[in-house]
Amino acid sequence: MSGEEEFHVKWSEFNDNLLACLRCLWEEEQFIDVTLACDGVQFKAHKLLLSASSDFFAKLLRENPCRHPIILFSDVFYKDLESILHFLYHGEVFIESSRLSHFFTLAEAMQIKGLTTDSE
Amino acid sequence: MSGEEEFHVKWSEFNDNLLACLRCLWEEEQFIDVTLACDGVQFKAHKLLLSASSDFFAKLLRENPCRHPIILFSDVFYKDLESILHFLYHGEVFIESSRLSHFFTLAEAMQIKGLTTDSE
Repeated sequence: MSGEEEFHVKWSEFNDNLLACLRCLWEEEQFIDVTLACDGVQFKAHKLLLSASSDFFAKLLRENPCRHPIILFSDVFYKDLESILHFLYHGEVFIESSRLSHFFTLAEAMQIKGLTTDSE
Repeated sequence: MSGEEEFHVKWSEFNDNLLACLRCLWEEEQFIDVTLACDGVQFKAHKLLLSASSDFFAKLLRENPCRHPIILFSDVFYKDLESILHFLYHGEVFIESSRLSHFFTLAEAMQIKGLTTDSE
């Protein structure tokens, strides 16, 4: 406005710090607003994080604006869902060789960005 | 487990993609759960993002577990709050020279990581 000089304020470590803090809030179960259940196990998560990296979750959660939905997956082994969640918060995960195909099948079904050929 | 071989699945663009998607959800006002108001203007945001980068917001929102709180700031000019929010989602912001000191005073009060000497 009015040709006034502007200063650029930038934090070089912003990305790394923000992601580390989001992981921290996840581990401490702070501001949790969705529960994923399968195979007798429950996992807590944030709608925002799931929706940012998965069109499947984005659509599901947008269309069901429940305050704290519990999403139950039948026919999913808890280790595969655990690995998907770890990937969504860390961008990487270690998978036992015998579970690789199950993991990628679930990732495809959940349209996980970075793991699927196309997240349509 | 059982000495089975593990595969490392990693997405190199995870950080950039996740942050771009979070900004997108903010701009589209998806999964909004907190409103900041000052100076006759309202700003929508996510508790999770505010809490990740500000100990002030983390404490305030943890201690007041309202579903969608409206936080009213008196004596705050809307441009300064707008700049803080932009910084929280982008890690950078342009500030008019005449507002620099107001911006940093507000950042200090809100204990914004990366902008304060110490976020105690």
